Amino acid sequence: MLKIYFATSNEHKFKEAEEILSKQGITTSHFKFSHTEIRSDSLEEIADEAAETAYSQLGKPDAVVFVEDTGLFIEALNGFPGTYSAWVQKKIGSEGLLRLMAGEKNRSASFKTCIVAKDSEGTHSFLGECKGTITENLRGKSGFGYDPIFIPDGESATFAEKICLKNKLSHRFKSLLLFADYLASKQRI
Amino acid sequence: MLKIYFATSNEHKFKEAEEILSKQGITTSHFKFSHTEIRSDSLEEIADEAAETAYSQLGKPDAVVFVEDTGLFIEALNGFPGTYSAWVQKKIGSEGLLRLMAGEKNRSASFKTCIVAKDSEGTHSFLGECKGTITENLRGKSGFGYDPIFIPDGESATFAEKICLKNKLSHRFKSLLLFADYLASKQRI
Repeated sequence: MLKIYFATSNEHKFKEAEEILSKQGITTSHFKFSHTEIRSDSLEEIADEAAETAYSQLGKPDAVVFVEDTGLFIEALNGFPGTYSAWVQKKIGSEGLLRLMAGEKNRSASFKTCIVAKDSEGTHSFLGECKGTITENLRGKSGFGYDPIFIPDGESATFAEKICLKNKLSHRFKSLLLFADYLASKQRI
Repeated sequence: MLKIYFATSNEHKFKEAEEILSKQGITTSHFKFSHTEIRSDSLEEIADEAAETAYSQLGKPDAVVFVEDTGLFIEALNGFPGTYSAWVQKKIGSEGLLRLMAGEKNRSASFKTCIVAKDSEGTHSFLGECKGTITENLRGKSGFGYDPIFIPDGESATFAEKICLKNKLSHRFKSLLLFADYLASKQRI
């Protein structure tokens, strides 16, 4: 039986992934992993380096170890806050992004999650994306991070106003499903 | 004769440091060095890792290799853009910082440079700081980066309006002088 480890220091992220993957029949273990990330404008590059490090730290060559990195990329701000989204949220918050976007007509943005899984065969990446727009004001109390200022395309509520949207549309959900497909095909072999 | 290398990919930074150090009787060579920096909120931590890497890449154990890392820390923005200043400048520019600071009464900010030098005896760090305030508008054309929005304490012009201020007051200048003192004491021994 293939052992799957999610390497993250974030308990919340682990619980979310565990639940989604268990619905796909996949049992996930938590590898409490914390390390100094590299600086890069590419989610994949950051996740790639983290997956390599986590895999070698765990020391279980037969397991699959995966990590994820997520960012919000705002078109009118040249992709800011991008791969630094969590850090920017801590410093200036969603309110700061709204101030930066004041008077801006182009509200297009995209949430992206990149999962990189490492096993004895190599590394594999799975990109989930959710396109949408940035609101003019904070809206809603659910979720976390930039959820109160992001409306997914085709909807009229923010993730924070209607958290159920997140479970079926989110970047993280999509990347986890791609990863689950990969695991299913691997286990069939 | 002690050989001093400045490890940087930035030709402009090298020229500036070379000029300041030559006035202190120190000859500096350029080690064209580029690597993937770590993510950290501490200039010293970033410079420390870079100095270690540069020293081992250069492969001259008898030399002194130094690197520098600089950031603008704005009090009302919890230290934003800090160690990510160059990246934030590329994405949202000085104009972006002014939008974030619109209506903010507390304009206090600080430019900091950390030099870390590595030699066979270990690592040594030299912190230069220049306190000041953030303007309400872009002012002046000289310099680069955040120079048009930063007025050093005790002055009424921005670095970009009066570039000579930068040469005697700047964070980078101060850290280079501390480093020069260290080199002088080392050579006396």
